[in-house]
Amino acid sequence: MTERLKMAAVGGGVIGGGWIARFLLSGHDVAVFDPHPDARRIIGDVIAGAERAWHRLFDQPLPPRGTLTFHDGLEAAVAGADWVQESVPETLEIKHAVLSAIAGAAPAHALIGSSTSGFKPSDLHAGIAKPARVFVAHPFNPVYLLPLVELVAGPANDDGILEDAERVLARVGMKGLKVRAEIDAHIADRLLEAVWREGLWLVNDGIATTAEIDDAIRYGFGLRWAQMGLFETYRIAGGEAGMTHFIEQFGPALKWPWTKLMDVPELTPELAAEIGRQSDEQSGLHDLRTLERIRDDNLVGFLRVLRENDWGAGQSVAEMSETLRGVVDDAPRADTTPLRLHEVTVPQSWLDYNGHMTEHRYLQVMGDATDAFLAHVGMDAGYRAAGRSVYTVETHIRHLDEVAGDARLAVETLVLGADAKRLRLFHRILDGERVVATGEHMLMHVDTAAGRASPFDAPLSDRIAALAARHSAEPLPDGAGGAIRAIARAPAAAEARG
Amino acid sequence: MTERLKMAAVGGGVIGGGWIARFLLSGHDVAVFDPHPDARRIIGDVIAGAERAWHRLFDQPLPPRGTLTFHDGLEAAVAGADWVQESVPETLEIKHAVLSAIAGAAPAHALIGSSTSGFKPSDLHAGIAKPARVFVAHPFNPVYLLPLVELVAGPANDDGILEDAERVLARVGMKGLKVRAEIDAHIADRLLEAVWREGLWLVNDGIATTAEIDDAIRYGFGLRWAQMGLFETYRIAGGEAGMTHFIEQFGPALKWPWTKLMDVPELTPELAAEIGRQSDEQSGLHDLRTLERIRDDNLVGFLRVLRENDWGAGQSVAEMSETLRGVVDDAPRADTTPLRLHEVTVPQSWLDYNGHMTEHRYLQVMGDATDAFLAHVGMDAGYRAAGRSVYTVETHIRHLDEVAGDARLAVETLVLGADAKRLRLFHRILDGERVVATGEHMLMHVDTAAGRASPFDAPLSDRIAALAARHSAEPLPDGAGGAIRAIARAPAAAEARG
Repeated sequence: MTERLKMAAVGGGVIGGGWIARFLLSGHDVAVFDPHPDARRIIGDVIAGAERAWHRLFDQPLPPRGTLTFHDGLEAAVAGADWVQESVPETLEIKHAVLSAIAGAAPAHALIGSSTSGFKPSDLHAGIAKPARVFVAHPFNPVYLLPLVELVAGPANDDGILEDAERVLARVGMKGLKVRAEIDAHIADRLLEAVWREGLWLVNDGIATTAEIDDAIRYGFGLRWAQMGLFETYRIAGGEAGMTHFIEQFGPALKWPWTKLMDVPELTPELAAEIGRQSDEQSGLHDLRTLERIRDDNLVGFLRVLRENDWGAGQSVAEMSETLRGVVDDAPRADTTPLRLHEVTVPQSWLDYNGHMTEHRYLQVMGDATDAFLAHVGMDAGYRAAGRSVYTVETHIRHLDEVAGDARLAVETLVLGADAKRLRLFHRILDGERVVATGEHMLMHVDTAAGRASPFDAPLSDRIAALAARHSAEPLPDGAGGAIRAIARAPAAAEARG
Repeated sequence: MTERLKMAAVGGGVIGGGWIARFLLSGHDVAVFDPHPDARRIIGDVIAGAERAWHRLFDQPLPPRGTLTFHDGLEAAVAGADWVQESVPETLEIKHAVLSAIAGAAPAHALIGSSTSGFKPSDLHAGIAKPARVFVAHPFNPVYLLPLVELVAGPANDDGILEDAERVLARVGMKGLKVRAEIDAHIADRLLEAVWREGLWLVNDGIATTAEIDDAIRYGFGLRWAQMGLFETYRIAGGEAGMTHFIEQFGPALKWPWTKLMDVPELTPELAAEIGRQSDEQSGLHDLRTLERIRDDNLVGFLRVLRENDWGAGQSVAEMSETLRGVVDDAPRADTTPLRLHEVTVPQSWLDYNGHMTEHRYLQVMGDATDAFLAHVGMDAGYRAAGRSVYTVETHIRHLDEVAGDARLAVETLVLGADAKRLRLFHRILDGERVVATGEHMLMHVDTAAGRASPFDAPLSDRIAALAARHSAEPLPDGAGGAIRAIARAPAAAEARG
């Protein structure tokens, strides 16, 4: 079930690198063929960015990275591959040559995806001797965060190939969207190209600058489209009258004079230079690395919101989180004392105006560690579905040190005591060697239907008792059992001025 | 500075209602003229949805709502208005009639915005006797959440009118985008219309269903556009070579065959019905109210992410939050004992798998109450900029009861003690009459540059001392000074089975 895949990437770069990062971070092995002299550096940069983003996105231990190998020849890279992804430049001749070589060298069962944003499968197949396993798998940048992959097959393809591709993609957190018929540019790039064309006209005619066009998107309909598309948005706008009525009303507008700008503006060197100049003015404040990080932090935030709301792309993230947990749970985990069950990288969005991790995020880390503990002793969806749960009734936190953004936090956990219905846990949050906080928590096992405390059921009862017995040999940790002390009624103001 | 505006809305409905809600929730008065028999109900629904969303978006007390009045005549509604917003159906004859009446009746200083999505200001001016104050102010649905307003003027307008409009819009959290030249459909609807045209073709030709097109958007580029637009996204994709080079490379694709579908598909009744059918299949699971709530929850989440990351539309939210605080701070606030300085409505995203507010959100509410307390005693941006801050060093929480989504929580705060450098606060979180949690917190005043504890400066020192003295008359609250007790080492497993 969690068998490791072997992925071969032909062509690195931004898109190929994104594919590589997804497979590696999901615990699968990747073999790369890319003759570009800087391929290793470029791919390494993409993986580093992807790993940073995934730690923020998933808040859970990631599986051990798969093995990354670089090969001097295409044949060596694709040997034994389950999935080969081609991400070479968008020129039909190059695609034909590379895909022919891949189809000739790859195992018979291999899925061979092309990252082409424009070519139809039939275009690709026309120049290949063995086209049956080659299909379009078109991703979106950044590939390690955006789930969408457009999947397109042609008449020469094996039956069911896209369904197989969909299953593999789900294992790396991607959503395969099967396109019903081949057309140039598939679906998304048709829409994008239409917007691009209008955007170029607006700049060309001096109606708006690149920054103004971008603002028209991201302060308005762009926010809508991160969660609902064109049609669902309009369905809501249409109101009670219904979608068919809305379309009938909206239809005439398509014939209005504002459809007159249908042609492509002449892309003169002057227009290209003007767009470059406006873009510098708009975005030149930040270098590319910074822009990428800003973009990724925003995307991670959106994906977390959607996951919390169980909607759209957030569902891909939730499923991938379960997949990752499965991979990690299959890995042997030392049952150490204290337990180490939870790690997290601190996102920038957790920082307060002082630039430090804000107060309640300490408790969030502790709460996640408690959840990891409960999972460790056997509390799973089935246990909860039976109407059993655990509530925190009391918490004592000592904030001992500041935590900066990007810090990698690990939690050590001790069972300080347990009885039939209660559990006393102690967490230490570590930033490297530094203890940055301790948390002591009294938890109560409850029968949620009856709405009252109830004894832990097996297997939790046994496992907690065993851990409590083992951990009782440890000295009581610093800060356990503490209370907040009274402050003597000194005249604060007077002393402050003294 | 926080003088109340009078806004007049001519035309309610979804768009007009959104404008009304924005002004009301920002503390300004609104007079409505809308002859629609259901106008009050429709507007009331929009305001209720908007208020729910704003409580989740801002996490702070909102100012008292402005006064809402309904009028039987347009003249009565616009009398004395600072801003009049016209949101009547998109027909030039109707716009001319209504805008003429408004321009004739409104005060000379009034700004008169039209919500038109397609007409140029000159189109509107052509049928009006007094056009100088009438301009395009085109918002985006939901108007109470999306900040964008396209502002367009024509030759007949007063100089500087759009700058005046921009300033008023900023007071209700909106971002006015001044369009440099009049064109049909301004900027955003040009882009939207292009996508709409392509989308209709894709459905018409059976390439994709409405749900598939929406997925192609919201699992892919839609996520990008909620934070960066077309050009900034491509700038990153273009990499080190620069934007001008990227454009030159991208340019030829515009001439590819995929630009062939330029015409508008024939909007036959069959196509309209087919889109209606597909939309039902895609979204019919949820009724419109539910879809609106899902949409708003997602948008609120994105806007909060962007605010935390200080980016894009989040900056509008942050500025509006300051504006709202200013309005609230100007309102007389009873200096009660205990203090009541913080309220919040619990978003769905704060709930755990049990459907209750998750553990660390209790501490978030307490932390926000602590911030509100510190602001109350005079800690402002200037105080912090001087290198002074307050850190929490210890916290004791008792979780006493569950909290459901949409609950309106209020916090009562007592000063249990203070000395020169320390402050002991006690918060009770109330859900109506129920105390759902208490929090006791030891805070330390620090000199952030020196990195060590330091005495509170004025005015905090005086105000804290005064509150400490006053609150010392209160009995020590239940739970103060408590610690987590040890659990006797009973054999948990044995008892659980007994």
